Amino acid sequence: MTVIARLDPDSPTPLYRQLRAALEESISAGHFPDGRLPSSRALATELGVSRNTVNLAYQELVVDGYVSTQPRSGLVVNAEVARRAPVRAAAARPEAPRRGRPPWDELVVPGPRDPFEGLRLPADWSQYPYPFLSAQIDVEHFPRQALAGALREALRDDHAVASLQDSRGQDDPWLVEQLCSRVLPARGITATPEDVLITSGSQQAFYLLGRALVRPGTRIAVENPGWADARAILGAAGGEIVPVDVDAGGIVMTSALSHVRLTCITPSHQLPTGVTLSIARRRELLDIAVASNSLIVEDDYDSELRYQGRPTPALKAIDTQDRVIYLGSLSKLLAPGLRLGFVVAAPELIDHMRRWRRIIIRHPPGVLQRALAVFIDRGDYHRWLRRNRATMKRKWARIVPAAAEHLPWPVAAPTGGLGLWVVADKDFDSRQLRTRAATEGVLLEQGQPLFCGPTPVTNTFRLGYAAIREERIEEGMTVIGRLARQIIDS
Amino acid sequence: MTVIARLDPDSPTPLYRQLRAALEESISAGHFPDGRLPSSRALATELGVSRNTVNLAYQELVVDGYVSTQPRSGLVVNAEVARRAPVRAAAARPEAPRRGRPPWDELVVPGPRDPFEGLRLPADWSQYPYPFLSAQIDVEHFPRQALAGALREALRDDHAVASLQDSRGQDDPWLVEQLCSRVLPARGITATPEDVLITSGSQQAFYLLGRALVRPGTRIAVENPGWADARAILGAAGGEIVPVDVDAGGIVMTSALSHVRLTCITPSHQLPTGVTLSIARRRELLDIAVASNSLIVEDDYDSELRYQGRPTPALKAIDTQDRVIYLGSLSKLLAPGLRLGFVVAAPELIDHMRRWRRIIIRHPPGVLQRALAVFIDRGDYHRWLRRNRATMKRKWARIVPAAAEHLPWPVAAPTGGLGLWVVADKDFDSRQLRTRAATEGVLLEQGQPLFCGPTPVTNTFRLGYAAIREERIEEGMTVIGRLARQIIDS
Repeated sequence: MTVIARLDPDSPTPLYRQLRAALEESISAGHFPDGRLPSSRALATELGVSRNTVNLAYQELVVDGYVSTQPRSGLVVNAEVARRAPVRAAAARPEAPRRGRPPWDELVVPGPRDPFEGLRLPADWSQYPYPFLSAQIDVEHFPRQALAGALREALRDDHAVASLQDSRGQDDPWLVEQLCSRVLPARGITATPEDVLITSGSQQAFYLLGRALVRPGTRIAVENPGWADARAILGAAGGEIVPVDVDAGGIVMTSALSHVRLTCITPSHQLPTGVTLSIARRRELLDIAVASNSLIVEDDYDSELRYQGRPTPALKAIDTQDRVIYLGSLSKLLAPGLRLGFVVAAPELIDHMRRWRRIIIRHPPGVLQRALAVFIDRGDYHRWLRRNRATMKRKWARIVPAAAEHLPWPVAAPTGGLGLWVVADKDFDSRQLRTRAATEGVLLEQGQPLFCGPTPVTNTFRLGYAAIREERIEEGMTVIGRLARQIIDS
Repeated sequence: MTVIARLDPDSPTPLYRQLRAALEESISAGHFPDGRLPSSRALATELGVSRNTVNLAYQELVVDGYVSTQPRSGLVVNAEVARRAPVRAAAARPEAPRRGRPPWDELVVPGPRDPFEGLRLPADWSQYPYPFLSAQIDVEHFPRQALAGALREALRDDHAVASLQDSRGQDDPWLVEQLCSRVLPARGITATPEDVLITSGSQQAFYLLGRALVRPGTRIAVENPGWADARAILGAAGGEIVPVDVDAGGIVMTSALSHVRLTCITPSHQLPTGVTLSIARRRELLDIAVASNSLIVEDDYDSELRYQGRPTPALKAIDTQDRVIYLGSLSKLLAPGLRLGFVVAAPELIDHMRRWRRIIIRHPPGVLQRALAVFIDRGDYHRWLRRNRATMKRKWARIVPAAAEHLPWPVAAPTGGLGLWVVADKDFDSRQLRTRAATEGVLLEQGQPLFCGPTPVTNTFRLGYAAIREERIEEGMTVIGRLARQIIDS
C-alpha cells in the first residue's frame, strides 16, 4: 500500500482533512503508479479509520479535481494532476534516459497563473444532478440540430471556400455583416464592418487588448469583485490592476477612474453581483474617459438575458467618441465550447488587434464563422435567443424565491443574467459548503477568485442556473440550505 | 472625377505603372467616397490614355488586393485598404464629432508586421482558373460530407458536452487519444496524452513557444529561406533570429546552431525548397541540441504527402531526450480554415504552453476537436489521407514534367509536398511575372517574404499545386512559361 498517513485523532483538524492532505502528497509523489487509488474499504482497514473518513477525504479530492471516478477502475488520478508529479512522469517513461533532458525550470519563461487553479470543476460535472453553474450550459436544452444544420450548410458549395480557406487574417465578411445588421442593432449599436473583429471568445478579446494597449505599468481599472480572467490576462500583459468597488449602482465612481488608461466593466449585469450600471454612472464614465483620455472596455456577455424590464442599451450605443471597446460573446448566449466572440471598436484599434490576432492564431475557424452566419441568417439565432430567454426566465423565477426560502441569508434578486450572487455572514466559509455540497451532487461556484486583494474573501459564492435543469432547482436549493445551516450550527 | 494622375509618357516607368501609383494615392486619400473606381472606359477617356493602360493598372490593383471585382459595381476598394485611409474613414462617419476621439497612434503598442503584407491574395482567388497555391485547398476535392457528418455526430448525445462545454483549458481527451494511438505512430512517434497540446494551427504553436521559451534576445535559428510566419512570431516575442542557409541536404550544419536556444526546421519537405533533411544531419542536429542545451522545433506540416519512397520518420521519433518539439498541422492535410494543429513535447513544456493558451483563447473549439476525433475514429481521416495523397501524387506527376517543358529554368523535382520551388536567373523579377500571370488567371506565390536579410531576393517563386485542379496544371504552366519568356525577352 502506498499511502503513508500519520493521522492524529487529537488534532483540531478533522481526520478526513488530515487524510486528504496525506493523499494529496502521495499523489504528488507518484505513489500511485497506475494512477488508481485503493478502495475506501481497503484504505480504511489499513489505516484503522472509518470508511466514512476515507470517503469524505476522497470526495474532497474529486471535487477539487485531483481524481475522478472511472467505471470499473474506481478513483483514478486525473491526467493534469499526474502531469505535475515528477516522480510519476519519470516512472511512466522508464525507457527515456534522463541524461540530456532539458532543464525545463531554467528554460521556460514563468507564465501566468490560472486564477481558478485549485478550484477545478470535476471533469464529469455534467453527471452531477445539481450543477449550479453559470459558465456551462445544459446541452439537452440547446439547438444542436439547428447548429448541425448550419455547419452542414457552411460546408456546401457556396460556403465551402469561406469555411475552409486560409483567410490570411480576415474574418468571414458575411458573419461580420450579419453581426452589423442583425445582432448589434438590438444593442443600440451602429457598426460598419471595419469596426468589427471576430475573436475566439471574450477571453481572446481581452488578450488582444492586452497586446495592443497595455505597456508595463499601464493602469487598468477593474470591478472588484469581477471577472478574474480579465484581471489575469491584463496583468500578464504587464498592466497595473486598479480594483474598484461595486455597489448596488454598479462600479463606484472614484477618482482612481481618472488615472487609468482602461476601465473594464460589465454594465448590463455586473459579474458576479448581477447589478446594472446606472445611467448616471454610464454618462459619468464616458465623460471621465474623454477628460482623462482613457478607454472603456464594455464586456457585454449576457445582456440579452433580461427578465425584468428591458435590456439597457449598451454603453457603446451612447459613445460618440470611440471611447468604448465593446466585447460581445456567444459563450453565454450559445455555448462556451464554440469559442466565438467579437469586438466593436474604432477601426484603428480593430486593425491593430487584427494584426496581433494574425500572428497568434491567423483567424478564428472559418467553418464556425460561416456556420454562425448561416445560423443568424436562417433566423435560428433569434429563435434560440427568445427560447433561451424564456427558459432562463423560468429558472430565474424558481431560484429567486427558492433562495429566499432556503438560504440563511438574504439574496438580492438580479433583473437578469445567469446566476445569483450570495454573500453569507462574514465568518461563513463557503469553501466548506462547496465541498460538502459536491458530495450530495450539488456544484456551486466559489466567489473567492473574483476578488482582488491579499485577504481571501471566503463568505461568497455564486449559484449559476445556466447548466442546471429547471425542475432540479428547488431540490438543489433545499440541499444547499440544509448544508449551510449545518455549517452555521457546527 | 477623382483620379488626379500626372502621367509622363517619356518616363522609363511604363504608363500603366504610373497610373497604378496615382490610383493607390487616390485610394489612400479617400478620393473614392463610395469605394467604387470609375470604369476603365471612363478613366481612359478622361486621362487620354488607352483602355489597355487603365486595365493593366486596374489588374495590378486587383492582384495586390487593393480593389476587387464586385458584380454590378465594377471595381470596389477593399474594406481593409479603405480602413487605412484616414480621410475616407472620417468621411464615412460624418456624424461622429472628432473632438475627444482617442489618439490611437499614441495609445496602441506597435504591433508585429505581417510578413506577407503587400502580397495579398485576391479575395476571389478561388475563382481564378489557375491558382498555383500551396496554402489553400481545392474545396471541390475535400471530404465535406464526411466532415459534416463528423460535426453532426459531435453534437449528438454522447459527445455534446465535450463539444459545447467550457473545458477550462483542457483538450478533448478523446481527440488526444486518437492522435496518440492512430496518427502519431505513423510518424514513428510514441506519445502519451500528457505530451500533447491541441493548437489553433501551427501558427498558434509557434506563438505559444514564443511566450513559453523566448526572452528578449533569445537566439533562434531558422531556415533561410523558410516559413516567414514563424520568423515573424518568434521575432515579435523578442527573439533574435539567426538565419541559416539551406542546401540540397536541408539546413546547413554551421557553428551558429551551437549558439541558439531554438532551431526551427521543416525536415520532411523543407519549406519552401522541398528538400528532405538528410539522416546524418538529423543525428547531428540532435547531438548539437544536447551538447548546447538547445531545443529543436520540428514543423511537420506535410510529411504524409510523399510520392517517391516512403515518408521519413519524424525527428521526434529518434529523440530520446525530449529535445524535439514536434508540431503537427491539419492545415495541409485537411484544410487551413479548420485551424487545428497539435504539439508533441515534454510534459513540462506542454503544461506551460497550456497555461499560456488558457489565458489566450482558453482552448480550441470543442466542437471541432470532437468532430476531428470522430473523423479519425470512423476511419475517414486515413481514407482521406490515402485519397488525397493519390490526388496530389497525380498533380505532382503532371507539374514536374510540365515545369521541365515550359519553364526557362531547371526546377528540382521534390519527392513530396505541395509545391515546386523555382529559382529563376538572378536578374529575373518574379514580381513582374506574378502580376502579369494574375491578369491571365494564374496565381503564384512570391518567394521574397521567405528570405531573411535586407536585400530582397526577387528571382524566386513557388508553384503550389494544392488548390489547382489536376487538369488545369498543364495549361497554367504553359501560360507561366510563355509570360516568363516574354519578360526575359523584353
